[in-house]
Amino acid sequence: MRTVTKDNITDVFRGYMADDMPPRTREVMSALVRHLHDFARETQLTHDEWRQGIAFLEGCAAIETADRHEFVLASDVLGLSSLVDMINSGPAATSSSVLGPFHVSGAPPLAVGGDMKRDFGGPVLLAEGVIRDPDGKPIPGAQIDIWQTAPNGLYASQDDAQDTYSFHGLMTVGDDGRYAFTTVKPVEYTVPSDGPVGDILRACGRHPWRPSHLHYIVKAPGYRTLVTEVFPDDDPYLDQDTVFGVREDLVMTYVERPADEFPDGMALSGKVADPFLHVAFDVTLAAL
Amino acid sequence: MRTVTKDNITDVFRGYMADDMPPRTREVMSALVRHLHDFARETQLTHDEWRQGIAFLEGCAAIETADRHEFVLASDVLGLSSLVDMINSGPAATSSSVLGPFHVSGAPPLAVGGDMKRDFGGPVLLAEGVIRDPDGKPIPGAQIDIWQTAPNGLYASQDDAQDTYSFHGLMTVGDDGRYAFTTVKPVEYTVPSDGPVGDILRACGRHPWRPSHLHYIVKAPGYRTLVTEVFPDDDPYLDQDTVFGVREDLVMTYVERPADEFPDGMALSGKVADPFLHVAFDVTLAAL
Ligand SMILES: [Fe+2]
Ligand SMILES: [Fe+2]
Repeated sequence: MRTVTKDNITDVFRGYMADDMPPRTREVMSALVRHLHDFARETQLTHDEWRQGIAFLEGCAAIETADRHEFVLASDVLGLSSLVDMINSGPAATSSSVLGPFHVSGAPPLAVGGDMKRDFGGPVLLAEGVIRDPDGKPIPGAQIDIWQTAPNGLYASQDDAQDTYSFHGLMTVGDDGRYAFTTVKPVEYTVPSDGPVGDILRACGRHPWRPSHLHYIVKAPGYRTLVTEVFPDDDPYLDQDTVFGVREDLVMTYVERPADEFPDGMALSGKVADPFLHVAFDVTLAAL
Repeated sequence: MRTVTKDNITDVFRGYMADDMPPRTREVMSALVRHLHDFARETQLTHDEWRQGIAFLEGCAAIETADRHEFVLASDVLGLSSLVDMINSGPAATSSSVLGPFHVSGAPPLAVGGDMKRDFGGPVLLAEGVIRDPDGKPIPGAQIDIWQTAPNGLYASQDDAQDTYSFHGLMTVGDDGRYAFTTVKPVEYTVPSDGPVGDILRACGRHPWRPSHLHYIVKAPGYRTLVTEVFPDDDPYLDQDTVFGVREDLVMTYVERPADEFPDGMALSGKVADPFLHVAFDVTLAAL
């Protein structure tokens, strides 16, 4: 008989897989198990540590609900989600960044130039840009799904005081590919840290903060859907985003401009009396 | 600012960890994340595949209960449980092997020479041996917790037709370190394959079978507790245990012997009219 040993168990695992299984499944499972086994061998993993790992997974399971995605959060804070984003980003397109757990489907339409700020306090932020193809040409009819935190750091789904779709909007651009909307500057916030993932952050001496950001999902027929974020260049957590979402091309300067420079053609045109912030962020989609 | 890229994200992760965190936690987390990232980079893991991985974990979470340990089962069929057993086994002691999900605490005492077969059909199996220290000396008062399947392939906890502690016994050996009991030959069985772990087995073209085995947990003050199994050398699944539990020193020959060779001093002495099976299996415990 063949003796399973700590040195040959990875080969034994490979030998158990059927000859006719899908080649990609074989490739992924072989690499997964090789790394899992090498991890245990290199660290000389103890039974106690193995039990802690199982308890971590069971702890995630215990709080997993339709609104609490602890396994996704684990992937986020370990850098796996961002790594998969980067592996699958083309150099010719705008970088992708984490979707995060707060996207909700069904955001109401927001006209180009529309307003999401409503009665919330603080300076107006005007965000605008053009959705382009890899040659730099505008993509008419592209769609941009926008969401962000309220000034209290909470998404609508976390905050009973907000409407369901507060700070959510779905914009369809015209022939010039241009989007524009007014809002408030989003604020930095913490990922949920009251579960097993929070325990990992604490065990590693890490904080749960993310730099402030606008979330965009940009779609157009014939192009790869882009999930991304826009960060201000003065955020204190830019270099230490706990989910590794910051990419150089996603960091923009929010420029303060006098009220009389507020452009025409916006929902708030003629209603802005104080200096406002302006961010210009063009998006390039990769062709399918 | 520092740009996170797919090439430096592993270093960025390491940089997030605090200087004063426990060194062993740093070592284990660094190795875990390095292997996780290398796995994604080497396979060029797609978003779809990442989602399948998350769905696997969420699927395990959905069926995890006090009686169904799907994460442990995943560790078992990927070879991690057995690898950790082997990493933590000393060469001077009997090999450890997987605990499995069917151990229950509180088994009733079974005297040396006692019987677990009762009215179940099939030939008597007589199992015996000596619990020894690394120098080969018997360990008086060592305790051996024994459990196995009934002839139908089910553990008592899986089978309403059996008593709670059917085929479970807790034996304390005397000064000679000798244990002995009668039972039936255990049978091969399948691990639960109706959940996400079963899906992985099917995706890899693997079967869910384990070779038949007796489970032992052997304890004695001053010695490392040993969780192990004993396998018969004629089992068809010996070379393909789906949880990788077979070690060379745990495989024994079940010898058929005539009824008149059945020894004295057993609960069944004088009551065995047909040929019986005999297995001798000594156990060596490592010192603490
Ligand atoms: Fe966010
Ligand atoms: Fe078993």
